[in-house]
Amino acid sequence: MQRYFLSQVNKPTEDLELPKDIAHHLTTVLRAEVNTKFEIVLADEQVYLAHVTRIDDVHTFAQIDQQLDVNVELPVKVTIASGLPKGDKAELITQKATELGATRIVFFDTERSVAKWAPAKQARKIERLQKIASGAAEQSHRQVIPEIVYYNNLKQLLENESADVKIVAWEESAKQGEQAQLVQSLEQLATGQTLLTIFGSEGGLSEAEVEIMSQYQVVPAGLGPRILRTETAPLYVLSAISYHFELEK
Amino acid sequence: MQRYFLSQVNKPTEDLELPKDIAHHLTTVLRAEVNTKFEIVLADEQVYLAHVTRIDDVHTFAQIDQQLDVNVELPVKVTIASGLPKGDKAELITQKATELGATRIVFFDTERSVAKWAPAKQARKIERLQKIASGAAEQSHRQVIPEIVYYNNLKQLLENESADVKIVAWEESAKQGEQAQLVQSLEQLATGQTLLTIFGSEGGLSEAEVEIMSQYQVVPAGLGPRILRTETAPLYVLSAISYHFELEK
Repeated sequence: MQRYFLSQVNKPTEDLELPKDIAHHLTTVLRAEVNTKFEIVLADEQVYLAHVTRIDDVHTFAQIDQQLDVNVELPVKVTIASGLPKGDKAELITQKATELGATRIVFFDTERSVAKWAPAKQARKIERLQKIASGAAEQSHRQVIPEIVYYNNLKQLLENESADVKIVAWEESAKQGEQAQLVQSLEQLATGQTLLTIFGSEGGLSEAEVEIMSQYQVVPAGLGPRILRTETAPLYVLSAISYHFELEK
Repeated sequence: MQRYFLSQVNKPTEDLELPKDIAHHLTTVLRAEVNTKFEIVLADEQVYLAHVTRIDDVHTFAQIDQQLDVNVELPVKVTIASGLPKGDKAELITQKATELGATRIVFFDTERSVAKWAPAKQARKIERLQKIASGAAEQSHRQVIPEIVYYNNLKQLLENESADVKIVAWEESAKQGEQAQLVQSLEQLATGQTLLTIFGSEGGLSEAEVEIMSQYQVVPAGLGPRILRTETAPLYVLSAISYHFELEK
């Protein structure tokens, strides 16, 4: 069933006029009619069944019915922090990390980042990624739209993104055969706690950057013996987190 | 270090004339000179150190030196069989599944596949994906280039792709809360054994298709509570397999 996000905090008691973009998608793309059912996620991150009550030339109204007993969110809150990658890879990371359950998606400039977002373009870039995250959240039936954030240096990232457990996927530690830290980090996490996972951009992270991170309790973790591209590593970690916490052993 | 694949079965005792594409990449793209070192994977799937010995106007020669003691292959052989997806998603699946360790990558037509490969175009499509797999195998430092295969129906896939354990990622079983089968299937596998993992294309697999699969011992497995796109599900499974087998508990 189609799912939309609404910023309402409480379930409205009366019919609700749907925002223009949702109304357009429902009536024009999906050809919804009166009584067509769909799902709404409110700001409480709960899923409600809803149905169209009235369509006129300019407005579409709906009633929000009962709350559904579903929870598809990861039991821990994961922030993906990726060195700003080249081309459209930020879009791929945003879409896939949303599908795979990330709560926040952060891009930041690294020493070796080739791509840079000019200050004048940052707002538009973030807005575009936020739109991709919203679409992916609807499609994968998330209850949370990940927030997209940008920092123009590592220090800003480390000062602003606190978390209960913090890891960095570092090629060099993977080369040295480090294969225990990811499991250990996940085992430290209790339900509701937060994990910050940091990834380099194409050139990888420098030793100096990993050294600075260590001052903020960020520990290097290997992701198996193969070399993963910058956009693949976050997907590996999110999949591993789901496998660890969500599948039955 | 740059890595190339050579079809030679045995380590040659004399200088070797490099194939044109490798020679071109080494000398023109990487500007290699005499004594530049690189890595070669021979048909025995072992990695050897090599160095350039001679460059003339038309040929590049190299000597293959000692074998390196590395193994980056998954301990089980995984075949990804994906319903033929739309657009360039077959390319994305091929590149990412190679990075994440797949041994074979199969595309097949499903009942609900929108994309079809016309018979006249199949060979060229496979060739293009095989090239992507080769490039990704070099870049991720694999020792095996996954073979790309295409079947124009499910029956062909099931008749031709034998495996010790076979699973299908089926949306319906995920919806019913199935979350134990993937772990169970992985626990059944011993080192060197084979796993076939089947995925639908955009429309998902039909009940009839999953029923036919069950006659070939293919069991449905859920991949967590979120709905994954057709190109994301194989990456989830491969990441989970690496997490299960390669990281230290």
